[in-house]
Amino acid sequence: MKNGLCFLIAAKRSEMLQLQQLARTSELVHATASLVHGLQRERGLSNLVLASGGRLHCAQRQQQVEENRAWEADIRQCFNALDTDSPQPEHGARLFSRIAYVLQGLDALPHLRQQIAQHNGTPERATAAFVKLVAGLLAVVFEAADSASDPEVSRLLVALFNFMQGKEFAGQERATGSAAFASGRATHAAQHKLLNLLESQERCLQVFHDFASVGMAGLWHQSQQGAPLAELERLRRVLCTAADGAPLNPEHSSPWFEVCTRRIDSMRVVESRLAQDLVTLCEERLAQAERELQAYLQLKTVPPTGTPEEQANAFFDEAPAPPPTTVAQAGAEPATITFATDRDALGPQLGRSILELVHAQSLRLQLMEAELDTARASLNERKLVERAKGLLMAHRHLSEDDAHKLMRHMAMSQNRRLVDVAQAVLSMADVLPARNR
Amino acid sequence: MKNGLCFLIAAKRSEMLQLQQLARTSELVHATASLVHGLQRERGLSNLVLASGGRLHCAQRQQQVEENRAWEADIRQCFNALDTDSPQPEHGARLFSRIAYVLQGLDALPHLRQQIAQHNGTPERATAAFVKLVAGLLAVVFEAADSASDPEVSRLLVALFNFMQGKEFAGQERATGSAAFASGRATHAAQHKLLNLLESQERCLQVFHDFASVGMAGLWHQSQQGAPLAELERLRRVLCTAADGAPLNPEHSSPWFEVCTRRIDSMRVVESRLAQDLVTLCEERLAQAERELQAYLQLKTVPPTGTPEEQANAFFDEAPAPPPTTVAQAGAEPATITFATDRDALGPQLGRSILELVHAQSLRLQLMEAELDTARASLNERKLVERAKGLLMAHRHLSEDDAHKLMRHMAMSQNRRLVDVAQAVLSMADVLPARNR
Repeated sequence: MKNGLCFLIAAKRSEMLQLQQLARTSELVHATASLVHGLQRERGLSNLVLASGGRLHCAQRQQQVEENRAWEADIRQCFNALDTDSPQPEHGARLFSRIAYVLQGLDALPHLRQQIAQHNGTPERATAAFVKLVAGLLAVVFEAADSASDPEVSRLLVALFNFMQGKEFAGQERATGSAAFASGRATHAAQHKLLNLLESQERCLQVFHDFASVGMAGLWHQSQQGAPLAELERLRRVLCTAADGAPLNPEHSSPWFEVCTRRIDSMRVVESRLAQDLVTLCEERLAQAERELQAYLQLKTVPPTGTPEEQANAFFDEAPAPPPTTVAQAGAEPATITFATDRDALGPQLGRSILELVHAQSLRLQLMEAELDTARASLNERKLVERAKGLLMAHRHLSEDDAHKLMRHMAMSQNRRLVDVAQAVLSMADVLPARNR
Repeated sequence: MKNGLCFLIAAKRSEMLQLQQLARTSELVHATASLVHGLQRERGLSNLVLASGGRLHCAQRQQQVEENRAWEADIRQCFNALDTDSPQPEHGARLFSRIAYVLQGLDALPHLRQQIAQHNGTPERATAAFVKLVAGLLAVVFEAADSASDPEVSRLLVALFNFMQGKEFAGQERATGSAAFASGRATHAAQHKLLNLLESQERCLQVFHDFASVGMAGLWHQSQQGAPLAELERLRRVLCTAADGAPLNPEHSSPWFEVCTRRIDSMRVVESRLAQDLVTLCEERLAQAERELQAYLQLKTVPPTGTPEEQANAFFDEAPAPPPTTVAQAGAEPATITFATDRDALGPQLGRSILELVHAQSLRLQLMEAELDTARASLNERKLVERAKGLLMAHRHLSEDDAHKLMRHMAMSQNRRLVDVAQAVLSMADVLPARNR
């Protein structure tokens, strides 16, 4: 018969098993960041190849393709290492579903590359194809961030996801600007797209800033100084302020591509550090959880204090002794509180009753959940947009692209943010079907 | 090497494994409801035994104790049946932690009963002891509701938890009123406690009403008609409107206990049906998920449509065909939308590409999550109160009881709801430690 102690230990073991899964997911996120970066480069090079009719950058593209094949092999290995047969955390089904999508995309990649190598198709089509695959990979990182069970890991994943998403918007900005300069003419449509990408980028980088460590945010700000950024801002201004139909200098296409690339490469340095930090943090957490579990398991040999009668009275009468909790405010981080109960000292359970330990554990789990909720709340904006898109797809039988375009159009014509349109779509959904059916 | 199809199936299997755990948790909730009801009766009878110095209701109490031992054996069996060694859903640690607490309480029960049998201790002390154990059991149901992975099961669990919590407040109302009449004198303190219990009860029953099926809500309203309720309301009025220190008729103690008991027994009928419905619903869901999984597994033998080249083009160019989704508004239920994609028809995947299946699956998971969030949001009020209590325990080194009393006192003196006080405590917490340290 399992007793209270068994479940006290089971709760601890459950935390540890969750961290193990989180550690595997983090390896996957790390590999994803590398592949995404490679695909962003390949996208840029493929554009140059197609736009020049195969005269330019063919060798570099080929080299990047080779490199990406290695990253792809890495990520496929991570996918294989995931345990798909055991019970998964709640988000398991969503993560697997995202991975299924990515694998379809990776399987389609050789075919796309063949077409590009034969200078088949437009730069726009190639860009759209890579955008789709990268979006699928980012969705994997999103699910990982949404399902992390440790508050600190969750914060780091939120920072990383938003940084990656911001970097992807920067990559799309590069492609959009290149095409605009190359076309030699400013259009309102392209300007609007560009302004949208800039705004989305800023929002992502703000969330990154809110959730990243001070050191990491500093590293990012440091990299955003100096001449290249000033040149980028100048070219952005040229692109965004030209009158509809006004001429643009096609010669600017190349320096634009150049400064954008330098910025994206500097983002890669931060991204790569974030991804590495994530893996390290998970390893630390896991080692810590294992030590904690061992300390709990010791209770089986060193029984806790109190006779059965004392324990009974303790349960019904006495207020449990307060857990030896220290409340620490994490430096200049956004306001959250870290409760270190049994985390900092090993074996604090010796000399305490099971009831005290149960109270301390419940308290810690509760406060961990509160911290997790804070980090996850930052992911809600994207979720609302995705859900609204899903609703439109289901109600109006739209494709995903068309649903997104419809919402984008509503946002533009009503001059509202995409997330506000999403909210409106979702609240309408509660009303409309009832009337229509 | 696992391909997209593998992960499509893994996502489905993950859903099924979650439902298996949910089915086990539902058995546990069912057993919990029975034990809670038994303990509520034992609490009432113990009070009568102690108040009468052992002259009244000794045999009935003994009979109830025997019955409760059987319920206890049931619930311990459910605890044993839980898999404590495999990875658990995110909430696993919290559920186990709650169970550890309950087991400490159950182990302490024989000692408490012995004291009652010897007419040792006051009715107040015995009531407080049972209240503590019942609160522990309700916390198990709460975690089950908070962790359910299926929207429909989640709604039912939210309804059941709130109904059980409301019934527990009704039980505490019975004890408080009995003591007040027996004491022969009205006090503001007792009146305030009573009003609080009534308000809490109503709030719980309102949430039950919001989430229960139409049939179940109707069953409840039907049971709340007629003479006994009118008598209860009359006695409630007597209790709540008497001036501070005014005499109360001790003879009313017995009819008060009687009408309260009849009401609680009628609540048991609804509670019991809810608990049974829960088990049935989980079984249905599980059987359905198993059929769905089998249909997905067939894909391995009947490969989906499309050549590799067609599949590649589908990924990069074509909008995926909209999933055969039907949008159904559930009758007079609160506004939610049920998306039946692959739920109603078996094997709809035949003749569709993997990409289409992946899209349909992602869409369904997304909308399921949205529905889950709605049900879970209703649990937030309690979470906020629990978290604020935890914060006070940690910051001020208070016991749980004292933290609760402090918040209750703040709510009374500021004439605010407990949840608003909790919110204030939590938002203060972000500010205070930074200044103090």
